[in-house]
Amino acid sequence: MGEAVLSEMATEIVVPVCAVIGIAFSLVQWVLVSRVKLTSERHASGGSGSNSKNGYSDYLIEEEEGINDHSVVTKCADIQTAISEGATSFLFTEYQYVGIFMIAFAILIFLFLGSVEGFSTKSQPCTYDKEKACKPALATAIFSTVSFLLGAVTSVLSGFLGMKIATYANARTTLEARKGVGKAFIIAFRSGAVMGFLLAANGLLVLYIAINLFKLYYGDDWEGLFEAITGYGLGGSSMALFGRVGGGIYTKAADVGADLVGKVERNIPEDDPRNPAVIADNVGDNVGDIAGMGSDLFGSYAESSCAALVVASISSFGVNHEFTAMLFPLLISSVGILVCLITTLFATDFFEIKVVKEIEPALKKQLIISTVLMTVGIAIVTLIGVPSSFTIYNFGTQKDVKNWQLFLCVGVGLWAGLIIGFVTEYYTSNAYSPVQDVADSCRTGAATNVIFGLALGYKSVIIPIFAIAISIFVSFSFAAMYGIAVAALGMLSTIATGLAIDAYGPISDNAGGIAEMAGMSHRIRERTDALDAAGNTTAAIGKGFAIGSAALVSLALFGAFVSRAAISTVDVLTPKVFIGLIVGAMLPYWFSAMTMKSVGSAALKMVEEVRRQFNTIPGLMEGHARPDYSTCVKISTDASIKEMIPPGALVMLTPLIVGTFFGVETLSGVLAGALVSGVQQIAISASNTGGAWDNAKKYIEAGASEHARDLGPKGSDPHKAAVIGDTVGDPLKDTSGPSLNILIKLMAVESLVFAPFFATHGGLLFKIF
Amino acid sequence: MGEAVLSEMATEIVVPVCAVIGIAFSLVQWVLVSRVKLTSERHASGGSGSNSKNGYSDYLIEEEEGINDHSVVTKCADIQTAISEGATSFLFTEYQYVGIFMIAFAILIFLFLGSVEGFSTKSQPCTYDKEKACKPALATAIFSTVSFLLGAVTSVLSGFLGMKIATYANARTTLEARKGVGKAFIIAFRSGAVMGFLLAANGLLVLYIAINLFKLYYGDDWEGLFEAITGYGLGGSSMALFGRVGGGIYTKAADVGADLVGKVERNIPEDDPRNPAVIADNVGDNVGDIAGMGSDLFGSYAESSCAALVVASISSFGVNHEFTAMLFPLLISSVGILVCLITTLFATDFFEIKVVKEIEPALKKQLIISTVLMTVGIAIVTLIGVPSSFTIYNFGTQKDVKNWQLFLCVGVGLWAGLIIGFVTEYYTSNAYSPVQDVADSCRTGAATNVIFGLALGYKSVIIPIFAIAISIFVSFSFAAMYGIAVAALGMLSTIATGLAIDAYGPISDNAGGIAEMAGMSHRIRERTDALDAAGNTTAAIGKGFAIGSAALVSLALFGAFVSRAAISTVDVLTPKVFIGLIVGAMLPYWFSAMTMKSVGSAALKMVEEVRRQFNTIPGLMEGHARPDYSTCVKISTDASIKEMIPPGALVMLTPLIVGTFFGVETLSGVLAGALVSGVQQIAISASNTGGAWDNAKKYIEAGASEHARDLGPKGSDPHKAAVIGDTVGDPLKDTSGPSLNILIKLMAVESLVFAPFFATHGGLLFKIF
Repeated sequence: MGEAVLSEMATEIVVPVCAVIGIAFSLVQWVLVSRVKLTSERHASGGSGSNSKNGYSDYLIEEEEGINDHSVVTKCADIQTAISEGATSFLFTEYQYVGIFMIAFAILIFLFLGSVEGFSTKSQPCTYDKEKACKPALATAIFSTVSFLLGAVTSVLSGFLGMKIATYANARTTLEARKGVGKAFIIAFRSGAVMGFLLAANGLLVLYIAINLFKLYYGDDWEGLFEAITGYGLGGSSMALFGRVGGGIYTKAADVGADLVGKVERNIPEDDPRNPAVIADNVGDNVGDIAGMGSDLFGSYAESSCAALVVASISSFGVNHEFTAMLFPLLISSVGILVCLITTLFATDFFEIKVVKEIEPALKKQLIISTVLMTVGIAIVTLIGVPSSFTIYNFGTQKDVKNWQLFLCVGVGLWAGLIIGFVTEYYTSNAYSPVQDVADSCRTGAATNVIFGLALGYKSVIIPIFAIAISIFVSFSFAAMYGIAVAALGMLSTIATGLAIDAYGPISDNAGGIAEMAGMSHRIRERTDALDAAGNTTAAIGKGFAIGSAALVSLALFGAFVSRAAISTVDVLTPKVFIGLIVGAMLPYWFSAMTMKSVGSAALKMVEEVRRQFNTIPGLMEGHARPDYSTCVKISTDASIKEMIPPGALVMLTPLIVGTFFGVETLSGVLAGALVSGVQQIAISASNTGGAWDNAKKYIEAGASEHARDLGPKGSDPHKAAVIGDTVGDPLKDTSGPSLNILIKLMAVESLVFAPFFATHGGLLFKIF
Repeated sequence: MGEAVLSEMATEIVVPVCAVIGIAFSLVQWVLVSRVKLTSERHASGGSGSNSKNGYSDYLIEEEEGINDHSVVTKCADIQTAISEGATSFLFTEYQYVGIFMIAFAILIFLFLGSVEGFSTKSQPCTYDKEKACKPALATAIFSTVSFLLGAVTSVLSGFLGMKIATYANARTTLEARKGVGKAFIIAFRSGAVMGFLLAANGLLVLYIAINLFKLYYGDDWEGLFEAITGYGLGGSSMALFGRVGGGIYTKAADVGADLVGKVERNIPEDDPRNPAVIADNVGDNVGDIAGMGSDLFGSYAESSCAALVVASISSFGVNHEFTAMLFPLLISSVGILVCLITTLFATDFFEIKVVKEIEPALKKQLIISTVLMTVGIAIVTLIGVPSSFTIYNFGTQKDVKNWQLFLCVGVGLWAGLIIGFVTEYYTSNAYSPVQDVADSCRTGAATNVIFGLALGYKSVIIPIFAIAISIFVSFSFAAMYGIAVAALGMLSTIATGLAIDAYGPISDNAGGIAEMAGMSHRIRERTDALDAAGNTTAAIGKGFAIGSAALVSLALFGAFVSRAAISTVDVLTPKVFIGLIVGAMLPYWFSAMTMKSVGSAALKMVEEVRRQFNTIPGLMEGHARPDYSTCVKISTDASIKEMIPPGALVMLTPLIVGTFFGVETLSGVLAGALVSGVQQIAISASNTGGAWDNAKKYIEAGASEHARDLGPKGSDPHKAAVIGDTVGDPLKDTSGPSLNILIKLMAVESLVFAPFFATHGGLLFKIF
């Protein structure tokens, strides 16, 4: 079998060092962003700072506009403060509710897992090696609870920091846009990088510390140790659920509400300061697209690491106590941070963006560079991090794996992610025919637009599913569920870059909003719009990654659950499994119905409030009076807090109810059903349909080609039809679609954590009858 | 074990007699319908015929309008002829293409199945009893091909006859509407009954004769006999696919095209004779909703019978040659015909409808009465048709079943159908809050209408899935796959009544169209509209039945396939199965994308043609000139023929490709994936979303309540938003949704027929690598 080249000591050093490098890099980016001063009196001195890249000398080669208008800076600072306060207050309210849930659920975990052996403190024989003594179930209960809380807190922190960074950077991006599109791009991208690296490094570091601390107690009982660590994934994911759902409802209620009255009824532009819902809309971008997404991807990362670790702990790595090989998942993430660091430099330092056209290629290059570099990184890690041959637990048996096979597992995940990303781009970017066809269908009205958009979303599912299926087949065949887990990790290994690109979009969007609200010139808005448009497409790519990785992660978790629950087959040809499968496949629909209706109802309330303000506040339409922004912020906050509970409960309670009353077989069916029905299909098609409608509208608005001008301009009938499509797509692409990722991951990780309980006490209903 | 009470001889008499009674009853109904004369000079004598129910004396108690206006009768006859000719010509064109496919596929079946044993004519040991000699694989190939052709021809005949009856009855319903709503109802319902009974009885009779003829050759080899019979299901279902898809594209291209220009742009009413697409629209109802649905339900019936028979043939019924018990599925259908006959009398003879309000309850009562009576019928058949205890084949083992357990299996299917039907009604009838909420959301425009409608569709999935899951669990637990098959038969046992109700809707719709085109008074139109509105809701119920039964049928076929391919487990935890599952779950999306896009493209062509005619034919809008109806009919015909091929190929080729290259395990995964993802979810949600939008629009138009009047009238902004929703829903509810039923059934039955080939020669790809 042999040993890994990298020694245990080296591993203990490499992982935390990489994490610290990631955090340090993100702080450097932060310092660079903070050089743009938001206080008008010190603006000039900040501008002529020591850094030659941001120095005054560079300014001369760009167009400068209004950089001496200090009142604009003050206005931007005011708007930023309003957005930041709105977002902070929402997140605090959200976290209050979520905090209560977190504590209640922590208690539940302790009680359920503790009860497996009747809260006994005696050691028990290990599950996979009956001759050895393992720590008592009570220890697993306590440590699972602790790691759950750790995961939850890290997730909350990730989301919150992301939001803080974004609301710190948005106005700065606006101000830099005065100096040119390249400057603004760098600020927005650097801010995205702050978030990306902070999350990736933080997630890795906390997990690393937790493993080492738990090891002090667990000693050689690695099986117990890594079972307890799975709580980390559950904590991360459950916070992500509330973040995504709450944030998603918030942002879309505000967006739909603002658009329906502002754009459609009153015919005022997007982000017009006269629109009472405009601040809520901008707050929404930060709490939904930034905080929600941050928590989501952190959750995916934590879960795939946990899934890989728990499977490894009962494979030769764990049984033979090969620490380096055991920490292979963390090593991949460590190398990922270094790779992403180099990749980032390509965007911010090695090249400079001068014209609008260069933005999208620059972002796409980020993905390609990071994937290529990471392939090399994976090869190195696999070569030195795992023995040349080892065995992996495979549902009751051990399977021989070579290190090059493991390399292929990680690699296939990584490249499948890229393919999914580019297919997503093809279907949602208005540079290609699918979106142009949708735009074209607006000629015959909103109905054909909606039909074509839905059909596009359905169609966009095909290639990603084949990519996922191939990754699953390859990694499953080579290394069973461990292969799937590391394939997911491969897809997520470039998470820092992915997050940077993802966060860049909403920051640019906000920057545009601030420019509009601060009454800055049309050219500034055009620049931020260009940033935003590129961000829209790349955000779609990011969503593709998130969905693809979610599919792999949840399958890996499902496999880990099945292993832990000691099931060796999940046979569709048994009634228990089949009803699980069919009901599981229904859950995404139930969940989507809830979230979409929530957005609809919240938007209706918002519409009424915005209409009320336009009708009752004299001089609002003329711009003499200030609208009451805070009431709209409150409506969004209240609605999203209230509405996130039922879908949240559906997801969190289903595994508990099914596991307790119907047992592990039916639960396996539910997980498989939810996975195949929900994740890829609704999630991919909903996201892409929404993205395509959004960009079809932008395509008509931009009027960049003969065809587009023929459909436009703004306010034409085809444009109105396109706006309807865009509005329909909002809840699909920003609330239901992304939340579904979490639905399947969360149900799987929850089942995994509770597996010992379900295996011992589950299936009450069948026991009674 | 014991024997069935009913002797073999009695069974041989009961089944054909019931079938003949069904056919006779349908002929009686036909004669009653034909009493309404369409030739004006003979109208008076026809009206004063001998039958007192339709006699002149009755006329006095109803309102009579324009019955002496002979020119109206001539006009109606002309329009009917145009519709009938359009429908016939379309079906002939369709059947030409489908005929070629049918022959090609028949050859394929023969070659694939014949090659299993290298076209050897030697007897071979039986699969389930190696000591006995069974007929050679070549015989199975020949007889499967024959029964495939038989099924295909019966299906085509069913669709064609249904269309003929409907186009015979539509104008007659219009004419009767002059005498009152009750008269019109009876004509429309009787016509529906002609179709319902003819199909049910015909399907049963052909199957019965085929079994008896095949038996002459097969003798005691029942296993081979009933394997060969499965071709009947495949033939029926593959014709149904083309019928549904082709018809669905036809009808919706015409409908959407007519509406987009007529209602939205030109502001002329529905079915206005000035609209060039109006004849195509009416033809569409007949080829899509009538012929397509007829083929579809015949396919379901044939498939569930075949699934039950093939499982029974390797159970104690088959092994011990208990003929009566073996034909239990046919006995259920026989009793179903008698039960439906009695049920029909409740609508046509025992009670009389006098006012509009009584129509919907009368139709709903049909469903309840037939279900209650059928429960008794099933009890009797189970008591006398099967031994009190027997064994059923259950994936490699035999399972003991009592006759009361089998009764529960059939009964649970029957009642689950009713529940699904009523849930469907709740979500799609404008008498309840879901549709009213959707109508209400039209206040804020088309976007919220679409969002709420989609959410409603997703939500409507929940209870039907639980109903299906419970039926599956009960019948699966009691009698394995045989239980599922007879549960499906239970749901379909009242098919004659279901079809009568289903067909009644489009006939009324057509009657309304003819009244409008013939320039009859507004009151006539109101009466046919009332019939149509009730028909819409009951049609939704019918679709619910079709979907529920499709889910059960395909699971039963899946089980039969697995048995025949000699697989004993379908383990989700193997890569081969899992990739099948995930790809299978994707197929409904791919298929829907194709069909929706087809409708969209065909509708765009139609829109252009209708616009062209309005712009170029002078005096068309003023009603002086006649539009060129036939060009529109041709556009619909050409588009639907062309566009039905790719989705048809997707469905037909997938099992062949997967089975041949990936083998039976992956194919099992594909079938299970397609089943859980497609059937219930997209199918149910698509149908219900579409139905809800349709009825939300009708709700606003009818203005029956304070709330509805507040949203209306026709032409108001909320109404316009509702029209957009209705148009979006058209392809969902009438093309994609219903075709998905067939997708899953057809893939399953095809896999079943080709199972021996796949089991022997399949999985090429894995054999090579």
